[in-house]
Amino acid sequence: MPEAASAPVTRTATGAGEFDRDTAVTRREPGVYDIDLSAGWTIFGAVNGGYLLAVLGRALADALPHPDPFTISAHYLTASRPGPAVVRIETVRAGRTLSTGQASLFQYDEAGHEVERIRVLASYGDLGSLPDDVRTTATPPAIPPMDQCFGPEDGPVLLEGGSAIIDRLLLKLDPATLGWALGAPSGRGEMRAWFGLADGRDPDPLALLLAVDALPPTAFEIGLSGWVPTVELTVHVRHRPAPGPLRVAITTRNLAGGFLEEDAEVWDSTDRLVAQSRQLARVRLG
Amino acid sequence: MPEAASAPVTRTATGAGEFDRDTAVTRREPGVYDIDLSAGWTIFGAVNGGYLLAVLGRALADALPHPDPFTISAHYLTASRPGPAVVRIETVRAGRTLSTGQASLFQYDEAGHEVERIRVLASYGDLGSLPDDVRTTATPPAIPPMDQCFGPEDGPVLLEGGSAIIDRLLLKLDPATLGWALGAPSGRGEMRAWFGLADGRDPDPLALLLAVDALPPTAFEIGLSGWVPTVELTVHVRHRPAPGPLRVAITTRNLAGGFLEEDAEVWDSTDRLVAQSRQLARVRLG
Repeated sequence: MPEAASAPVTRTATGAGEFDRDTAVTRREPGVYDIDLSAGWTIFGAVNGGYLLAVLGRALADALPHPDPFTISAHYLTASRPGPAVVRIETVRAGRTLSTGQASLFQYDEAGHEVERIRVLASYGDLGSLPDDVRTTATPPAIPPMDQCFGPEDGPVLLEGGSAIIDRLLLKLDPATLGWALGAPSGRGEMRAWFGLADGRDPDPLALLLAVDALPPTAFEIGLSGWVPTVELTVHVRHRPAPGPLRVAITTRNLAGGFLEEDAEVWDSTDRLVAQSRQLARVRLG
Repeated sequence: MPEAASAPVTRTATGAGEFDRDTAVTRREPGVYDIDLSAGWTIFGAVNGGYLLAVLGRALADALPHPDPFTISAHYLTASRPGPAVVRIETVRAGRTLSTGQASLFQYDEAGHEVERIRVLASYGDLGSLPDDVRTTATPPAIPPMDQCFGPEDGPVLLEGGSAIIDRLLLKLDPATLGWALGAPSGRGEMRAWFGLADGRDPDPLALLLAVDALPPTAFEIGLSGWVPTVELTVHVRHRPAPGPLRVAITTRNLAGGFLEEDAEVWDSTDRLVAQSRQLARVRLG
């Protein structure tokens, strides 16, 4: 874990961090973008789904007339690997306040043929143009101060096994949702954490796409171990996040038939609910 | 309201009801389906979004190698009207246990050009093949018996204004979430109801796509009136529903910036959670 994650964070401007460097896409022609998927955002060799969604979200922001993802739905088809990829975008509709786009990310098989990894539908708008009314009944998650929470650097059991992504993230888990790491899962489908980028780069809407899929799976606290691959993930970005660390709370209500849903809420440093997401995931017992 | 909705329901077999008739698609060629959107499923002239999703879901079930929608995400582009429409489907990936498809519904402008109404991404599987394990913490909604709940036939204020869809549905709202109809909204973003098809046709996975978007909007109980058009709706179908009426609970936690999310849970007559959905909707003040 780099020094920044455990020491007081030195801020990096949005646009100048590891996340910006590794999500940068190059426009080959209108609607077609090249990227080299970074090995720095992998978990056990597979590229993290939230990082991939941020890559697609960034290409869509370039291609569509509006800058911010309001709602983005991704269906994960095959596992992505570090290396070259191409993103192909279709503008489905360009409206006054919302535009809708479709994006696919492809990699190449051994014969050089394109293999689709993810397909995305998204509606974009301008978060800066929204009225400032808030009539929410949601409340921020009860999570202890960051110095009372635990990250991968605090114990070998957390996300062990050489997951490069943990070096990119500031992730501090609420001890109340860490029973699984001590062999005593709570049985409740809850996980809570402080979240940021390890280099201190402040959150923006694209970083929220990463935040919703960065915690250990709720399945661990239900008492399952193993791989929980995402089938589909939809994120609503509701407000531009303020500078500073985020709090992420994920919950699962329904584990049944070998599938579960995982809902995430992301709160910024001003106690504003900035993103909500839900994914459907498969349970592959370890 | 037809007799069936207030009298004891006479069951109609799945496949032989109004819902089956009005969602029937005709295959023109592989991946292309024609349908005449029925005026029977409109609200104030616009075709209901859940009915449209069921139409697309039915075409996808025909085109894909798996029969049941596991997760289906729809982005609503322009308002659909009763009349001819064409559905175009692309099979994105056909896997062993899941297949993914994309579907678009088009209607025709005055010059006869296709105008896209909805675009959908969906992953299909076989609900009958899932293991029967259930480790859920979700509990069915607290809702009084059906004879203590209220439908459109019980008062002119409920969904007044000539919405044809109310003749197709058995909809009985929990009086605890009916404050809005009496001019005294609770301020809580909750709505609960018994739900079925008015002709007694039992629910199936396609009917669940209708059920999640059939209640009055939670915005009414928050104290807003007016139109709440859906931007995006994602439904997870988790189990094949048992015969008999469904219970639907919808909640909104975050109304902010002119948008809100609406989460639905659908429970069958055996207390099984059969579907979960979330939509992002715009608030257009009335």
